[in-house]
Amino acid sequence: MTSNDSDTANARSGGARRDFMRLALMEAASAAARGEVPVGAVLVKDGTVLATDGNRTRELSDPTAHAEMLVIRRAAVRLGNDRLTDCDLYVTLEPCTMCAAAISFARLRRVYYGAADAKGGAVESGVRFFAQPTCHHRPDLYGGLGESEAADLLREFFAGRRG
Amino acid sequence: MTSNDSDTANARSGGARRDFMRLALMEAASAAARGEVPVGAVLVKDGTVLATDGNRTRELSDPTAHAEMLVIRRAAVRLGNDRLTDCDLYVTLEPCTMCAAAISFARLRRVYYGAADAKGGAVESGVRFFAQPTCHHRPDLYGGLGESEAADLLREFFAGRRG
Repeated sequence: MTSNDSDTANARSGGARRDFMRLALMEAASAAARGEVPVGAVLVKDGTVLATDGNRTRELSDPTAHAEMLVIRRAAVRLGNDRLTDCDLYVTLEPCTMCAAAISFARLRRVYYGAADAKGGAVESGVRFFAQPTCHHRPDLYGGLGESEAADLLREFFAGRRG
Repeated sequence: MTSNDSDTANARSGGARRDFMRLALMEAASAAARGEVPVGAVLVKDGTVLATDGNRTRELSDPTAHAEMLVIRRAAVRLGNDRLTDCDLYVTLEPCTMCAAAISFARLRRVYYGAADAKGGAVESGVRFFAQPTCHHRPDLYGGLGESEAADLLREFFAGRRG
């Protein structure tokens, strides 16, 4: 591969990452329309989407039904393996403590997330799980992708609930 | 209620707690027989068992299928509510980071656990989630119930795997 080919591949890859996060943002918007906290997630392997979903804690009467948990569970069933080796997660909000630990158990390769969450996050906020000795697998972490759209969705949702 | 009645009620309640933990230990033994890490859990409301289960991460190809998660999810569906108010969890091993956060989201009232887990626990070990500012509901916590039986099951299981 020449340097030029490599540049093109990188640009394509950057475009793909934005596309996956856009899909996650659409899931977040759908969650808001269902009255759920607007967070969306997409699980990808080798450029193929294995699962997309948004929060469904109310709809499913399931306190664990965060977007990340739903796509991890669906992708694991699809692959027939509880370890999602070489899989990447796109999620609109910084994962919480529960989801961060689930991401570690699932052995995800990379996590791209949008807005930080000082109140409930566990990557750069709170318990910073991936930096702890009881975390036994740490994915590569990329914050701030699609951050402003993700934050806008959450702001509008909570403003609407207060209104 | 006289002091004597109260003593009897307390003794009965202690007996009930031991019975619920014994049921959790039976679930842990069943998990071991299925080749799963032997942890079992029981979810109780008003003295009634809402759900019992053991780890099923391998069987279900689900990295989130810890015993605690399975009983929380089943009880929440049964009650039609993602908040398990006034519910108590019995689990044979100190909950991990994922399960501790799920316990908090589910608003459980009390958690009784058996053996401590220095390597992966998150109650008295690791991130000590319930003492963190990003934890927004803290159950009452009781460690050491059925501790030796729970630890024996785990020790035998891992010894068998190495053998």
